[in-house]
Amino acid sequence: MIIVMKPQAKPESIQRIKSIIESKGLQAHISAGHEVTIIGVVGDKSKLMDQNLEIFEDVDKIVPVTESYKLANKKFHPEPTKVKVGNVEIGGDTTVIISGPCAVESRTQLLVTAHAIKKAGAHILRGGAYKPRTSPYAFQGLEEEGLKYMKEAKEETGLPVVCEVTSQNAIEAAVKYVDMLQIGARNMQNFYLLKEAGKTGLPVLLKRGLSATIEEWLNAAEYIIAEGNPNVVLCERGIRTFETSTRNTLDISAVPVIKSKSHLPIIVDPSHASGVRAYVKSLSMAAVAVGADGLMIETHPDPSTALSDGPQSLSFDQFEDLTKELKPLIQLMGKKF
Amino acid sequence: MIIVMKPQAKPESIQRIKSIIESKGLQAHISAGHEVTIIGVVGDKSKLMDQNLEIFEDVDKIVPVTESYKLANKKFHPEPTKVKVGNVEIGGDTTVIISGPCAVESRTQLLVTAHAIKKAGAHILRGGAYKPRTSPYAFQGLEEEGLKYMKEAKEETGLPVVCEVTSQNAIEAAVKYVDMLQIGARNMQNFYLLKEAGKTGLPVLLKRGLSATIEEWLNAAEYIIAEGNPNVVLCERGIRTFETSTRNTLDISAVPVIKSKSHLPIIVDPSHASGVRAYVKSLSMAAVAVGADGLMIETHPDPSTALSDGPQSLSFDQFEDLTKELKPLIQLMGKKF
Amino acid sequence: MIIVMKPQAKPESIQRIKSIIESKGLQAHISAGHEVTIIGVVGDKSKLMDQNLEIFEDVDKIVPVTESYKLANKKFHPEPTKVKVGNVEIGGDTTVIISGPCAVESRTQLLVTAHAIKKAGAHILRGGAYKPRTSPYAFQGLEEEGLKYMKEAKEETGLPVVCEVTSQNAIEAAVKYVDMLQIGARNMQNFYLLKEAGKTGLPVLLKRGLSATIEEWLNAAEYIIAEGNPNVVLCERGIRTFETSTRNTLDISAVPVIKSKSHLPIIVDPSHASGVRAYVKSLSMAAVAVGADGLMIETHPDPSTALSDGPQSLSFDQFEDLTKELKPLIQLMGKKF
Amino acid sequence: MIIVMKPQAKPESIQRIKSIIESKGLQAHISAGHEVTIIGVVGDKSKLMDQNLEIFEDVDKIVPVTESYKLANKKFHPEPTKVKVGNVEIGGDTTVIISGPCAVESRTQLLVTAHAIKKAGAHILRGGAYKPRTSPYAFQGLEEEGLKYMKEAKEETGLPVVCEVTSQNAIEAAVKYVDMLQIGARNMQNFYLLKEAGKTGLPVLLKRGLSATIEEWLNAAEYIIAEGNPNVVLCERGIRTFETSTRNTLDISAVPVIKSKSHLPIIVDPSHASGVRAYVKSLSMAAVAVGADGLMIETHPDPSTALSDGPQSLSFDQFEDLTKELKPLIQLMGKKF
Repeated sequence: MIIVMKPQAKPESIQRIKSIIESKGLQAHISAGHEVTIIGVVGDKSKLMDQNLEIFEDVDKIVPVTESYKLANKKFHPEPTKVKVGNVEIGGDTTVIISGPCAVESRTQLLVTAHAIKKAGAHILRGGAYKPRTSPYAFQGLEEEGLKYMKEAKEETGLPVVCEVTSQNAIEAAVKYVDMLQIGARNMQNFYLLKEAGKTGLPVLLKRGLSATIEEWLNAAEYIIAEGNPNVVLCERGIRTFETSTRNTLDISAVPVIKSKSHLPIIVDPSHASGVRAYVKSLSMAAVAVGADGLMIETHPDPSTALSDGPQSLSFDQFEDLTKELKPLIQLMGKKF
Repeated sequence: MIIVMKPQAKPESIQRIKSIIESKGLQAHISAGHEVTIIGVVGDKSKLMDQNLEIFEDVDKIVPVTESYKLANKKFHPEPTKVKVGNVEIGGDTTVIISGPCAVESRTQLLVTAHAIKKAGAHILRGGAYKPRTSPYAFQGLEEEGLKYMKEAKEETGLPVVCEVTSQNAIEAAVKYVDMLQIGARNMQNFYLLKEAGKTGLPVLLKRGLSATIEEWLNAAEYIIAEGNPNVVLCERGIRTFETSTRNTLDISAVPVIKSKSHLPIIVDPSHASGVRAYVKSLSMAAVAVGADGLMIETHPDPSTALSDGPQSLSFDQFEDLTKELKPLIQLMGKKF
Repeated sequence: MIIVMKPQAKPESIQRIKSIIESKGLQAHISAGHEVTIIGVVGDKSKLMDQNLEIFEDVDKIVPVTESYKLANKKFHPEPTKVKVGNVEIGGDTTVIISGPCAVESRTQLLVTAHAIKKAGAHILRGGAYKPRTSPYAFQGLEEEGLKYMKEAKEETGLPVVCEVTSQNAIEAAVKYVDMLQIGARNMQNFYLLKEAGKTGLPVLLKRGLSATIEEWLNAAEYIIAEGNPNVVLCERGIRTFETSTRNTLDISAVPVIKSKSHLPIIVDPSHASGVRAYVKSLSMAAVAVGADGLMIETHPDPSTALSDGPQSLSFDQFEDLTKELKPLIQLMGKKF
Repeated sequence: MIIVMKPQAKPESIQRIKSIIESKGLQAHISAGHEVTIIGVVGDKSKLMDQNLEIFEDVDKIVPVTESYKLANKKFHPEPTKVKVGNVEIGGDTTVIISGPCAVESRTQLLVTAHAIKKAGAHILRGGAYKPRTSPYAFQGLEEEGLKYMKEAKEETGLPVVCEVTSQNAIEAAVKYVDMLQIGARNMQNFYLLKEAGKTGLPVLLKRGLSATIEEWLNAAEYIIAEGNPNVVLCERGIRTFETSTRNTLDISAVPVIKSKSHLPIIVDPSHASGVRAYVKSLSMAAVAVGADGLMIETHPDPSTALSDGPQSLSFDQFEDLTKELKPLIQLMGKKF
């Protein structure tokens, strides 16, 4: 942590900051420049948590130099984390494809989809039973009934299943049926939910918030890991910007940034990022080429009648076509499919 | 709802869309232009909820023409809503000042603050007992203990109290102690929480999400009202943009926009919007002048040691100075203080 | 300038950076923390301009501690600048109202407008003769003919005039007719144009770019002042964000931020910021209350037929109504109107 | 164009709009819904350019249904455009690699770079002689001297050359030396410059503005093409968002969006998009996989002493390593390298 003083800071102001720092058992290194004086703090900065140094006289600003997340930080855990979801490993030598409908609508819809995506090569089945929707009048999900279909689909196909949870109740139900919990973009900073998901010990797929910085995202992961659950997979799904030709803006750079700052695996969701199924294939190719550990792609037996996010869902033919194109690229990247 | 067809759309594609619309008991008005054909849908568009017309052949895009929120919409409820919080009315002829610490830290801190803000003219006491913090290592709040101090402060001063809730547990505790629930920015689209807050019947202070459009914000209010609870007060607290010289960007225009689209009262939180206490006074003046129904301003007995958001908190002297400057402006705007 | 080293940086990496700094005649202050080592640079950092220290081995990041703008910086020029435009002073004890049409369309339109806004109390006439339009098929301005009408309007009414310039040719023409040059948002980082405007010695109204940070804006002002022309007035006109209910998002906080970082006057343009005339009055009130030195408001004899930005232009009646409401507020703020 | 009326719009308001539309020789199709009435306009909407219908009584909003750009629009020119730069074709069957230093610093620096990138397989040499820099105190470029070195480098290596132009003077100089003009992000809406670049007939590399929508970007291209110059290549170089871990946010989706809306070729600049050379390789892979027609990558003989953008520049070894990795991917995508 560095404290930058204002120009013409009074010596007693500088001395006062120095005293506060030293009173907490830390060291203050003072560099008096010709324009400004800066004070470097050496030691455990958490000891200064109850001191808001920026509002002391003559202080210009505080510059943090270390990240606030520790358990999710590559600096302290250089080895990549591999997360097991059922018999599938994310972050290892396979590019993992998660697919399924945005919302579970019926038993038939889910079972048909599960078989279709398995045939096309997908590794994990997704399906929403608790749907966070902008309008209260939109379809809100089948809840526990949907979870039961997820479990049945798993038993029929052998595919592990992942489902979004939006409340403690949903978590309590989901742990009985699914292999992985998903925390959605709108709940990325629902810290209560993060802690509860962490406590289950189940692997957690943590989507990036619509306007979350990468720093905030890794701090959200920290909440889960701090509960003793290191099984976190990050999912980049587009951020909110001024551009309107896609539903969100896929921040493809998030993949190499996460790879340089964290040991956690990261996958990409081109369906939500673009909101347009015509762009899903090329964005999937980009995600694999940039080094993502997997993809999450929405599919539906009949996208034209899907109750949620139909316009971005692929039909089974389109999905099969996509996996065929992805295969040689995944191999070129040195991964298995 | 308008369906815009692609140029050179085939007649059978247009006919197909028309048939779907009519099969739902709606009317399709076709306007064939020299570049494109558009189809206007007349009738209750919710009947088309299970049809994703944008992915049918030759469809270019769907343009909604009506808002998805109804109960929060001024078009259907032109009269301004007034919300009673204890004996205080928000949205009426008084500009309501809510003040208090970001986080309740101790009984003494809260009681001292309650008396000080009352003396300076504030109408409602705020205080956070459940704190959503970016890092799991930051102070997370006193929880129910903090709520008890809130109730005690109310009994001592007569000021109604508002407290943020972040989970169903927090709601269950809060209803026993406070006059108004606050849903914070990070939970604005925690739809489960919105419904639970709606069910309590207590007035709800709904902060705008960091990257929420005004349309999404009013839909979040719709979730609360749809539970039979019309007592919603909106709070603009800054949105996330590229600018970094303030913590967030106060969207002052949100006030006249909300006044034109909704009947709900709206207040402004300049403390969170700017993150810098030196800017709080001038932004408070702007908020009153633009027509806000109230202000929420953070205060603390000693901002330099506040456990949360100290840099944006005012000391009691600064708060008293602010209310003195606000008074003639509020009167000029034709409101009481 | 502070250099933050990576954890476990090798001693020889730290030594190498120290040597480079010292070889430029600067001092390096090293603070070795328990996680990371930081190096404070003391001296004139411009001597390091040809050294990209961030790419040396074991360097994590570079943190600048001083602003790159000097002439526009309040730290070195604490006294507020007052800019004379004809006989009008911006930044002094009067809240200055600039008004007129977005585009000069005809001699009559401009003269009628000039008389109307003068009658309502405006101090300066604006009018665009060179229009930067998104589409090449939109009206592009009357160019020099428009400038001549501006001069005529000035002679008839005594109001000083300001006109946007978009090229060196436009500057060469404008200096013959107008009292102040405007650099528009889209040209805020057209550095060539900034220098040419600086060379004229005329006062310059510098609008903020659509996605310009305040730091970049002040650096753009620095380009003008560095040509020996200190007569710069800043104009906040809304920034680009995700919100679409207004054309741009008025960053009202920019006013106190500029007041704390710079000595230059700042005015607000609520017409371009909102793009909706129904919001212009309340945003004007907010701008005066937040402490702006003036306003720029678009007016037109018949907004329904304006060739540019009609939807945000006020009719003369609306403008007169606005100035009547502003007057007591301006007086309350201790300013003249 | 569709006009959406307010609920309870008076019949005479609707009739008035209809009359205006018909008075311009256009047709008005009225759809009276149970909530709102909409009016579809059939015919050439440019005839309504001098009518601001949104401010007539009872009008809620205007919804455009066709794009304002025509010459750059795929709807009217479905065949992909191929642009010849010297002997190199962009938009054809080769993925074109443009490389070179951000700024031309010396004759030696440029010649050494030209030979190195040619050896590694690049097709076109870039180099900035007119540098738009945020601060007036940063290196501003060698101007015409730099252009001469560009020409010499071309003669020595046979590589065509591209250089950014920032003013009419720069264009006049550049046409004597280079094969392609670049319009930079900060000048994307410098419409005067776009027209002048269009008039030269030289191919133009048009970078996307920092906060330009894709619609605005294609309108900027329209300015160039409208001057009779169809040789426009678009370059995605990152947009401005809230995320700070990269200098800008690479909008990788812009590639498929442009491919669906326009016939113009599009390349990607991962150097400026990320600002961090460690991310350049993976983003280059993503750009090729998503379907870009080429890449622009900054290289420098010694990035640690580059006068501009050193932190994002690759050394020659890094560039050669990159092209080796790109080659099999380009071939997998069915393109030549």
